[in-house]
Amino acid sequence: MKLIRFGQPGAEKPGLYIDGTRRDLSGHFADWDRGFFNAGGLEELRTLAAKAGDLPEVPEDTRWGSPVARPGKVICIGLNYSDHAAESGMDIPKEPIVFQKGSNTVVGPYDDILIPRGSEKTDWEVELGIVMGRDARYLASESEAAAYIAGYCISHDVSERAFQIERGGQWTKGKSCDTFNPLGPWVATPEEIADVQNLDMGLSVNGSQRQSGNTATMIFNCRFLVYYLSQFMTLEAGDLISTGTPPGVGLGMKPPQYLKAGDEVELTIAGLGCQRQVCKNA
Amino acid sequence: MKLIRFGQPGAEKPGLYIDGTRRDLSGHFADWDRGFFNAGGLEELRTLAAKAGDLPEVPEDTRWGSPVARPGKVICIGLNYSDHAAESGMDIPKEPIVFQKGSNTVVGPYDDILIPRGSEKTDWEVELGIVMGRDARYLASESEAAAYIAGYCISHDVSERAFQIERGGQWTKGKSCDTFNPLGPWVATPEEIADVQNLDMGLSVNGSQRQSGNTATMIFNCRFLVYYLSQFMTLEAGDLISTGTPPGVGLGMKPPQYLKAGDEVELTIAGLGCQRQVCKNA
Repeated sequence: MKLIRFGQPGAEKPGLYIDGTRRDLSGHFADWDRGFFNAGGLEELRTLAAKAGDLPEVPEDTRWGSPVARPGKVICIGLNYSDHAAESGMDIPKEPIVFQKGSNTVVGPYDDILIPRGSEKTDWEVELGIVMGRDARYLASESEAAAYIAGYCISHDVSERAFQIERGGQWTKGKSCDTFNPLGPWVATPEEIADVQNLDMGLSVNGSQRQSGNTATMIFNCRFLVYYLSQFMTLEAGDLISTGTPPGVGLGMKPPQYLKAGDEVELTIAGLGCQRQVCKNA
Repeated sequence: MKLIRFGQPGAEKPGLYIDGTRRDLSGHFADWDRGFFNAGGLEELRTLAAKAGDLPEVPEDTRWGSPVARPGKVICIGLNYSDHAAESGMDIPKEPIVFQKGSNTVVGPYDDILIPRGSEKTDWEVELGIVMGRDARYLASESEAAAYIAGYCISHDVSERAFQIERGGQWTKGKSCDTFNPLGPWVATPEEIADVQNLDMGLSVNGSQRQSGNTATMIFNCRFLVYYLSQFMTLEAGDLISTGTPPGVGLGMKPPQYLKAGDEVELTIAGLGCQRQVCKNA
């Protein structure tokens, strides 16, 4: 299944993307949120999805929202691709580097990116996002973690490098600016993805390819990350984990290049669709 | 006014603490949350507070919950007292160091602290917490920030030092463990506090004084912090900002000392009441 949400910001409704058509599920469920996932809603949803023809279509010009409700938290993994660590001049981490973004940064996959005031180094990062399907705490193993994953999506971890790196050591300031986490267009449940550790991914700016990679080169794989994080904190259903970015960010270019108003960014991950954002000044 | 919440975890109701008695406001308001604050609920609440005798009392043995609903985000300021920076062996920051805790760490002021599995360095930090009263973005000045503050409370920024410092550089892993943010007992609205930058604060473990300080020695004051953070991110009403800790944390003792199961921690800030937690193993 491909979970979507549609409608105006703050008033999105839940739906499914089936055979190229968006279907409205708001008559059956309130939202794709913690309560839905923890109640085993995905199983109930499967029954409905099998009768897609009975579900109302979403009008074509309706905005695509973030495919899940605002997460309880957004956890990000730093430097999780060995070749990206190298381009950033950083050592390969011995264990996952973990930081957070404000969950109010999450927007729809085609919404504008706002360049923060005073920003000169707004950068792009295509990432594979994991959406949690059950509350998870002290999981016993990587293999146990599989059952706790609701699905996967494109997560754009937009980053202001000066705010992140040059302003005090911790990264939050450069990660939590408004609109800095476009998500979607859909969350694909695990059975939609043959091998989540073998997905091509890419990002272009104004039509020029900038990032190109494959989830096969992750240092720490998705299931391990869920297992690992659950040793430190309770991951709640609906939480988002962004799993790090492959090579090709603006910071790593010679000379570095950053986003400016008017730039158009496109992101793709195999099986997870395509995002597109236009940059504007905040 | 002193805002409180009471009842079982996850089912707390809003109330007020008036003349040593807890009053139930759940007949008038759903919760002390973003919607309440942004709708100007505090003004309406003042009218009701003036007729405290008409409000039902909360039964005495009812649990004290966190005094505000789960925040959209929890922002913390690192090394914001010059003497604490010195004891940690860190330089005085040129501008605020900003990091986040998961907002699911927030618990009541008398709830247990769970020592995480594998933890050997669970440490204490008494902090002054700011609760946001209106959404704030690109505030013009420190003085403008005053109108965006709903009130102040004790915030216990429990920290696992090995997870925080020895496991990858970013601090989130040592800050977001379950129960790591006891909050309350109440949020005092600004008119309750004569000078928020002159409040004595302290923390004891098993009756021995460990931390002792005053908000006068903050490097960056409360209004500045709200102004400053609003340049990087939208602060939402109901968000919590923990403003840093004074000297005396376990990490700074010679030799360092940390919390273990059975330890009892007490925290006080002048005008903001007293917290008390017992430590248990997770």
